[in-house]
Amino acid sequence: MADVIVAVDAMGGDNAPVEIVKGAVDAVVLRPEIKVLLVGIEDVVKAELAKYTYDKDRIEVINATEVIATEEPPVMAIRRKKDSSLVVALNQVKNGRADAFVSAGSSGAVLVGGQLIAGKIKGIERAPLAPLIPTEKGVSLLIDCGANVDARASHLVQFARMGSVYMESVVGVKNPKVAIVNIGAEEEKGNALVKETMPLLKNCTDINFVGSVEARDIPKGDVDVIVCEAFVGNVILKLYEGVGSTFMKKIKGCMYKNLKTKIGGLLLKSSLKETLKAFDASEHGGAPLLGLNGLVVKAHGNSTSKEITNSIIQCIAFKKQQINEKIKANLLDEE
Amino acid sequence: MADVIVAVDAMGGDNAPVEIVKGAVDAVVLRPEIKVLLVGIEDVVKAELAKYTYDKDRIEVINATEVIATEEPPVMAIRRKKDSSLVVALNQVKNGRADAFVSAGSSGAVLVGGQLIAGKIKGIERAPLAPLIPTEKGVSLLIDCGANVDARASHLVQFARMGSVYMESVVGVKNPKVAIVNIGAEEEKGNALVKETMPLLKNCTDINFVGSVEARDIPKGDVDVIVCEAFVGNVILKLYEGVGSTFMKKIKGCMYKNLKTKIGGLLLKSSLKETLKAFDASEHGGAPLLGLNGLVVKAHGNSTSKEITNSIIQCIAFKKQQINEKIKANLLDEE
Repeated sequence: MADVIVAVDAMGGDNAPVEIVKGAVDAVVLRPEIKVLLVGIEDVVKAELAKYTYDKDRIEVINATEVIATEEPPVMAIRRKKDSSLVVALNQVKNGRADAFVSAGSSGAVLVGGQLIAGKIKGIERAPLAPLIPTEKGVSLLIDCGANVDARASHLVQFARMGSVYMESVVGVKNPKVAIVNIGAEEEKGNALVKETMPLLKNCTDINFVGSVEARDIPKGDVDVIVCEAFVGNVILKLYEGVGSTFMKKIKGCMYKNLKTKIGGLLLKSSLKETLKAFDASEHGGAPLLGLNGLVVKAHGNSTSKEITNSIIQCIAFKKQQINEKIKANLLDEE
Repeated sequence: MADVIVAVDAMGGDNAPVEIVKGAVDAVVLRPEIKVLLVGIEDVVKAELAKYTYDKDRIEVINATEVIATEEPPVMAIRRKKDSSLVVALNQVKNGRADAFVSAGSSGAVLVGGQLIAGKIKGIERAPLAPLIPTEKGVSLLIDCGANVDARASHLVQFARMGSVYMESVVGVKNPKVAIVNIGAEEEKGNALVKETMPLLKNCTDINFVGSVEARDIPKGDVDVIVCEAFVGNVILKLYEGVGSTFMKKIKGCMYKNLKTKIGGLLLKSSLKETLKAFDASEHGGAPLLGLNGLVVKAHGNSTSKEITNSIIQCIAFKKQQINEKIKANLLDEE
């Protein structure tokens, strides 16, 4: 008997359905407590599944005749394509058949669909997207990187509390350090939003709030939960990827300069690969959209099976650790 | 006869006065059109100068008995320490004795002092700090990274126009591409400020506005002038440094793992050093604070003589290319 039922959007993402189906199979093979509802065009999904050996009772195919493309305007796509893999899979969460939903499809559609179909927990003002970002010491949770910008102070306070619960219970960081992104450590620094939020965070007795974090220090990994408004979070997330990829390109370029550097490159290759693996986002699964009824996980658009598997597996801790019950208990404290 | 007179804060920065004095000497040795007014505690500055051989007519020491420390609240420091090196040097610009001011001292004090003492060009609403950041293709101007956050749309439009003039006339990029930092390329994306600014920038006929730039693409260097509100700019600038330094640390770590990687590291060392030099901020001099009467240049707090020299030399193009006259002409167009 499966403990955790995950509805997976088999048609979402650049590598769907091949990598999504493989990721789902690997997840049920690796973890006995998982059952996957694989949602997509039945013939296509079944043809992919036929390649693998697995426990047939633990993957169920649910037919959905439509697919939402990345470039479609999210709200309209969700409303019109009632039989899309994304909408049908989210409905499994809504009607209680599934505990969680995983998709590598259109970010906009996942974010909008999550809020419209799964729905927000009563009392939660906004559902933040919270990816784990790699640091020198491990990972930190960056909350919010979603599509809803121009947050209010009360939103950021809820982000801090939800992020703290997730980091402690799912990622396993004890008493996680929570900080707000700011442009200096001094008390008087910051924009209007940060200045308004700072005293509210200081008053939260249920989180370990440590003050400001400057962007320069984020990669060091000294804080566990990094709270910011979604526009800023999006800039941080994307720049992290951009600077990292430019550095990698430069370093590879160095290695191909001449015979000497080519030999040097060969000698360093495996060590470099291993070290930089820690900076690979796919190791950490997808980003949760917190504060919803059920769990919604957004995997990268270019996810391979490995990220899909990790995204499905992270749903186990989410359910077993009763994250949503803890978030609801926090809301009661607030009143 | 010197063409460009630069007042230099000899006491500002982590390496003052040693590196500042050396940087000033190197600048006058390298470029015959420069005269430096070296402002600081006279005995100390003269003792440093005594180490070097240079044309005595082209460095003048101006005594200032006080020093503003990095941790002092900027406004109060500027108001109270009338005989500080920073205030006395800025007064040289104010009273027309100097064309420009260079300091590696407290960022806050340079920004506040620049606006209070040199003063803004009439019609300029806010003076942005605009550092050059390294990219795959060269450098881009990131405007604004200053201390005045929560900008309005009209400020961003002025930043775009001033940045475009600077990039074209001082850095020498013809018809520079101007873009605004956003969280997606689509028209409907962005926060309230970006949405309000976008149509205003499209209407600027004097700049080559190309639309949005996502943070992920900034390191690629496809756009020359990157316009953003100062909080966002500060996050971009600091994260750029932070991710870069973490990557360097990781790569160095790789090289010291075992004998094989040590040899690999030795073979790659010079190639790597050369490549990464392009990512060294000190190569590009300090960041100009634009829109002021005269030029104010903020060098990094940890500047060595090389960055000071480059900061002084960039004042030549600023004056010869008549940047402020061009900025004033733009303002007239606007009316």
